[in-house]
Amino acid sequence: METVDYIQRDINSIWHPYTQMKDLEKFPPVLIEKAIGAKLFASDGKFYYDTISSWWCNIHGHCHPGVMGAIREQTEKLDHVIFAGFTHAPAIELAEELLKIAPRNLKKVFFSDNGSTAVEVAMKMSFQYWKNIGLPEKENFLSLDSAYHGDTIGAMSVSGNSIFNNIFKPLLFGSFKAKTPYCYRCPFSKKYGECSFECLKDAENIIKLHFRKIAAVILEPMVLCAGGMIVYPKEYLKGIEELCRKYDIHLIADEVATGFARTGKMFAVNHAEVNPDFMCLSKGITSGSLSLGATLTTPKIFNAFYDDYEKMKTFYHGHTHTANPIACSSAVKSIKLFSEENTLKKIERINRKMSVFLSNVKKMISIVGDTREIGLIGAIELVKNRNTKEHFLFEERIGFKIYNMGLEKNILLRPLGNVIYFFLPACLEDDELDYIFSASYDILSAIEIRNK
Amino acid sequence: METVDYIQRDINSIWHPYTQMKDLEKFPPVLIEKAIGAKLFASDGKFYYDTISSWWCNIHGHCHPGVMGAIREQTEKLDHVIFAGFTHAPAIELAEELLKIAPRNLKKVFFSDNGSTAVEVAMKMSFQYWKNIGLPEKENFLSLDSAYHGDTIGAMSVSGNSIFNNIFKPLLFGSFKAKTPYCYRCPFSKKYGECSFECLKDAENIIKLHFRKIAAVILEPMVLCAGGMIVYPKEYLKGIEELCRKYDIHLIADEVATGFARTGKMFAVNHAEVNPDFMCLSKGITSGSLSLGATLTTPKIFNAFYDDYEKMKTFYHGHTHTANPIACSSAVKSIKLFSEENTLKKIERINRKMSVFLSNVKKMISIVGDTREIGLIGAIELVKNRNTKEHFLFEERIGFKIYNMGLEKNILLRPLGNVIYFFLPACLEDDELDYIFSASYDILSAIEIRNK
Repeated sequence: METVDYIQRDINSIWHPYTQMKDLEKFPPVLIEKAIGAKLFASDGKFYYDTISSWWCNIHGHCHPGVMGAIREQTEKLDHVIFAGFTHAPAIELAEELLKIAPRNLKKVFFSDNGSTAVEVAMKMSFQYWKNIGLPEKENFLSLDSAYHGDTIGAMSVSGNSIFNNIFKPLLFGSFKAKTPYCYRCPFSKKYGECSFECLKDAENIIKLHFRKIAAVILEPMVLCAGGMIVYPKEYLKGIEELCRKYDIHLIADEVATGFARTGKMFAVNHAEVNPDFMCLSKGITSGSLSLGATLTTPKIFNAFYDDYEKMKTFYHGHTHTANPIACSSAVKSIKLFSEENTLKKIERINRKMSVFLSNVKKMISIVGDTREIGLIGAIELVKNRNTKEHFLFEERIGFKIYNMGLEKNILLRPLGNVIYFFLPACLEDDELDYIFSASYDILSAIEIRNK
Repeated sequence: METVDYIQRDINSIWHPYTQMKDLEKFPPVLIEKAIGAKLFASDGKFYYDTISSWWCNIHGHCHPGVMGAIREQTEKLDHVIFAGFTHAPAIELAEELLKIAPRNLKKVFFSDNGSTAVEVAMKMSFQYWKNIGLPEKENFLSLDSAYHGDTIGAMSVSGNSIFNNIFKPLLFGSFKAKTPYCYRCPFSKKYGECSFECLKDAENIIKLHFRKIAAVILEPMVLCAGGMIVYPKEYLKGIEELCRKYDIHLIADEVATGFARTGKMFAVNHAEVNPDFMCLSKGITSGSLSLGATLTTPKIFNAFYDDYEKMKTFYHGHTHTANPIACSSAVKSIKLFSEENTLKKIERINRKMSVFLSNVKKMISIVGDTREIGLIGAIELVKNRNTKEHFLFEERIGFKIYNMGLEKNILLRPLGNVIYFFLPACLEDDELDYIFSASYDILSAIEIRNK
């Protein structure tokens, strides 16, 4: 492949997501030709370890023969069919596989085609549920002030304030925001283990005052991902569930990023044995091979829409590729791989290795303010000064520097501001992990030296 | 395949889109096993002509060997890679193919993963453009009062009022609505050919008053699809473009349903030689095989975001499966098929046959109030009384009756209320068309008799 030519053609015609395109003048995009396991192979002969699972979606490794085989097989039968009035085996099998591994209270699967839509479906269902049962004033949402739920207007409306969505505020609907349980920078200046879960009380104060107007709490269970890989205590998650039950509010678990064992359990809600009213899935559902979304819910919700047509209780929502058969086939195979390859065991091993690495950098490198981890996710929050927890400045673009240093060392790191993180695929072998962590250590050391 | 068993399993675990699930008690979903060309093969041995191209997305026929082959080939190389900082040949080739066939003023492609996101990307880009160039008060949208742009909150906000979105109004942002150029039921009681485009004046009146606050007009070029397959005069489309130029407002062409020759030209804007500032694509882009979205725009828009990172002009938006390589590969092949198979010629032939059918039913069947057509789209609006244009009532569910009668006759018709429509794939042969139209004629006759 004529690498240079292709890259120039890319720059001529493509506008990349989340990218200041002017940056490409100095740092052109890397042209990827092939991917196997955790490795992305560029056209110039280099390879990169995909330590962020290509935006958090890959699970079993790239081009897994099982998943790719399922795609190929399905193309011989049925590419796609409208999913209203019609159905097909891949969707039915996938729905059953999902319900088998999901919390037991979830019994119905509504398919869509990406993560934002999986979230918007849950929100719209919750909103309409209260209308359908005669409590129409319950039409607001509560979410966390560092949450991220997607880039469509509805999903942005329940996300926290950030550079991603501040400018779009006039288009967003208002929602209640509770303080994030961000222990390292506790908004209540407490310390985990010595606190009384003031964060939970903050949520309860809002709920107590407004529960008659609140349809649902939406949150990312156990870890706020785009918000900075903020892993929070499971007591908080359990506490939110209890508040939802006490005040008759739905709980929407946005497992788009955390689902499919990314946190070490099949779903992040499992850590606290939480049974949400809605669970939103995408990313890992197809092991990151194709776009697909699913929103799982309970019979109670489902039944509130089940009535004679004339009663106008139908949920009018759909996407063209709702339950696309090819995507569903890849998802069925991906779920089966968890038992076939004993994936949860692999994740335990990876997590153990990552733990050692994280405690090591925390001990050895002065700019490491905090480390956080759960399952395949590990995060390192960098600070200019450990005592004051002073941030690196936006203009310093510390994350972008690390990104470029990573590429030089064959690893794809894509920090969120000052937070370097790993969002690992489960296929990584020990020697690969050793390499990734050692290279990352070197990068951190280099940044530390610059900061001195 | 054990049909009955599978269907029961579907009903147990799946919640279908746009479906009153109680209807499935009497009318269970049809289990599709296989699809070739325009035919959907059910597990019980029956087949159905997919006259609505599975929600308007299939173009070259189901499981087209070229498109399926492209998918299979890509699975041997690269399943997926993050599209920020990285790129790949299928995306580059697809971007170039799209720019080759799109209006010349469009030079940049921003990928996403479905139709709603393609629309929301255009809206957010337009909105941010005016902020970036220092006209921040331009933050509203104008759309048509029978428009449909998708089911996410942002896309719903610029859609017309309908049973689909009325209930969600508290979540939608406000937008200006112009009267739809719906000639059969002209909101100004005029007749096409004798009117002065009062509909255009209605839009102009709103624009004149509010242009300083309007970012963009968004519309479906030539035909409002979900609104009832309302084909409108190209003078209206051209007139809107002129208003946009005169008052410095963006024009967003939502070609999600109309793109890729559905209207007989590659894009519906071509009918009026309109050059929109944004063009939103999905559905037909992969010939309906996999979910993918794209938003095309101009250098002028692109350049307003192109600056030093610190200037905060970046477009922060992205979806996991932005430019998924497998989906891009299927799309590249689908576009090439237009010349390889001379698809536009096929569409002409299909359109000629459909024209004859439509004028025939209009002449012969008393409940046909209006017929409309463009390219592969044909619509028949049914009325109780031709003179008064009286509607069939919502409770009569005339569309649902026709849907079920269609299935009995091996055709998938899925009326929008009282509008029966065809949204044909380009692969249909003459004998297939003859059958479809003759069966449709019989259904219309049967409904006519019931109405007497």
